[in-house]
Amino acid sequence: MGSENRRPEMRKDNVNNRWVIFSPARSRRPSDFKSKSNNNNNNQLECPFCLGHEHECAPEIFRFPPDSTSDWRIRVIQNLYPALSRDIDPSSLQNPNPSPISGGVALSGFGFHDVVIESPVHSVHLSDLDPVDVGVVLLAYKKRIQQLLSHDSIKYVQVFKNHGASAGASMSHSHSQIMALPVVPPSASVRLDCMKAYFDQTRKCSICEARSDDLIIDKSTHFISIVPFAATFPFEIWIIPLDHSSHFHKIDNQKATDLGGLLKLMLRKLCLQLNNPPFNLMIHTCPLEDTLPELPYGHWFIQIVPQLTVMGGFEMGTGCYINPVFPEDAAKIVREVRISG
Amino acid sequence: MGSENRRPEMRKDNVNNRWVIFSPARSRRPSDFKSKSNNNNNNQLECPFCLGHEHECAPEIFRFPPDSTSDWRIRVIQNLYPALSRDIDPSSLQNPNPSPISGGVALSGFGFHDVVIESPVHSVHLSDLDPVDVGVVLLAYKKRIQQLLSHDSIKYVQVFKNHGASAGASMSHSHSQIMALPVVPPSASVRLDCMKAYFDQTRKCSICEARSDDLIIDKSTHFISIVPFAATFPFEIWIIPLDHSSHFHKIDNQKATDLGGLLKLMLRKLCLQLNNPPFNLMIHTCPLEDTLPELPYGHWFIQIVPQLTVMGGFEMGTGCYINPVFPEDAAKIVREVRISG
Repeated sequence: MGSENRRPEMRKDNVNNRWVIFSPARSRRPSDFKSKSNNNNNNQLECPFCLGHEHECAPEIFRFPPDSTSDWRIRVIQNLYPALSRDIDPSSLQNPNPSPISGGVALSGFGFHDVVIESPVHSVHLSDLDPVDVGVVLLAYKKRIQQLLSHDSIKYVQVFKNHGASAGASMSHSHSQIMALPVVPPSASVRLDCMKAYFDQTRKCSICEARSDDLIIDKSTHFISIVPFAATFPFEIWIIPLDHSSHFHKIDNQKATDLGGLLKLMLRKLCLQLNNPPFNLMIHTCPLEDTLPELPYGHWFIQIVPQLTVMGGFEMGTGCYINPVFPEDAAKIVREVRISG
Repeated sequence: MGSENRRPEMRKDNVNNRWVIFSPARSRRPSDFKSKSNNNNNNQLECPFCLGHEHECAPEIFRFPPDSTSDWRIRVIQNLYPALSRDIDPSSLQNPNPSPISGGVALSGFGFHDVVIESPVHSVHLSDLDPVDVGVVLLAYKKRIQQLLSHDSIKYVQVFKNHGASAGASMSHSHSQIMALPVVPPSASVRLDCMKAYFDQTRKCSICEARSDDLIIDKSTHFISIVPFAATFPFEIWIIPLDHSSHFHKIDNQKATDLGGLLKLMLRKLCLQLNNPPFNLMIHTCPLEDTLPELPYGHWFIQIVPQLTVMGGFEMGTGCYINPVFPEDAAKIVREVRISG
């Protein structure tokens, strides 16, 4: 791949305002990256997400199809161990009192923390579903975000998926999570500020611009998948709507199916190339307070991060990451993975 | 500890400008936290950091005592796999050209990446040294930072230590690392901006203020150890100079020995309470371009983070962390750990 001869380089993209160090000296050959994790934890006994165990779960919010019984395909439920509580009076957020313990401000932990069970069958993963059904999972996110929009106190919704224990999944049954927050979280603020600054300077959206030929992996009718210019992690992938769009939850059924196909393809390619790695998937959208007008600088996208490296004190201390694989090398490798069947 | 009855709370301190969610529902009892990692990797065969293997290492920068031969106590050497390269012409940093691949800016990866071998003996860890010798390790950091100061292109120096493979340590022999960067990294910028805003508002330093009785663990003559008000991670500890001081590298010999004692105590308490957890240690100082005047709002400190939780898609996506242990509970537990001998 030529990485062996390259010198280290620092890159900052126009999206996250974050320096990343690309350091081939610390790398195996990029094509040799494989996960060592064992994600084949398919212990089906006593899994509350499986068909027939619905009564062991926290309350259901909705299911698809809506009137299904033992033939449900997706269930959206409350998290049994929510990080934020829907039972707190959101009016308590209006007056963030200094805490009795000095050192900053404290807010009550109002918010929502839900789970999307992506299949009734324990051994079926998101990438095993057909494109239409992956699209239905995406439409379940959309529907839940639209419900959460009715709460004025909710400022941001983070959709994410942890696959594999070392990526933070405590359940092996395929699922994703939706957290609705009473504040715009720091990464979203920084991203929006950075994208707005780029727009103010160039009158262009930095995500619309992020599609250099060297970085493109694949395309569908409405979406493109790339390795970002300043990828924080090796083999990190972004899936971006080709048409400018600020908010994920405005996706329509046709585009959801199209996205389902490209998302499935990316997950299968990563699984094949990197030996079924643990991964995190995040949907990055815009704050809900700006929901109605399209933001000319805000553009939603999906980020997929296979867990191949360990975060150490350097990353934790500086917020600066070391990535041993140049994005154009990672893009080439993933582009060339052949999926059979 | 009473956490079981608490509702979730969000906190933001006056140092990092970062919301943290404290969520007791997701917790075991705080006193039940133990590491499951096995850090007893004392495979001494073929360790290049051991006494007698000096020729297997990258070039030495200095050792202590300076003229020692087989009786050295500390060696500071180049990293054999540096993330940044000292062999790049730093003048190439002056003109950060847009990369040929579009999407942002790229800089040559000029910088320094050094290793501090903390003991000649494989099985001796930092917390096994006596306070004076821990102080000597700190003075080695100081000396190396003073050398790096002479490079105008270096804007920030990050000292850090990874203990245990899951905290990012690739060598089990006790060591720490020093990285000198040509940019002020994002976490340091955000911290300085946040502390400056607090100072402009209150005329007080937010770190000088961060010592509520409930959060204090221990004190020495010149230092205090606390769990911070909005600790990002369970059992995270900060060690703070009692007197206001912007830059770590201005520490004197007497204070280094005093700090060595408190640092050793904190590491031993964490080891005992949490079952020898993997951990990261970071020294947070001020940018070097501001080195001469004391900054009224900048105050250096040491951060110790035991690795007890896994980062998932929520944290990665939002930059917002979920901490299952309230800081005042963690401080009480660590305060009460009794060290024998």
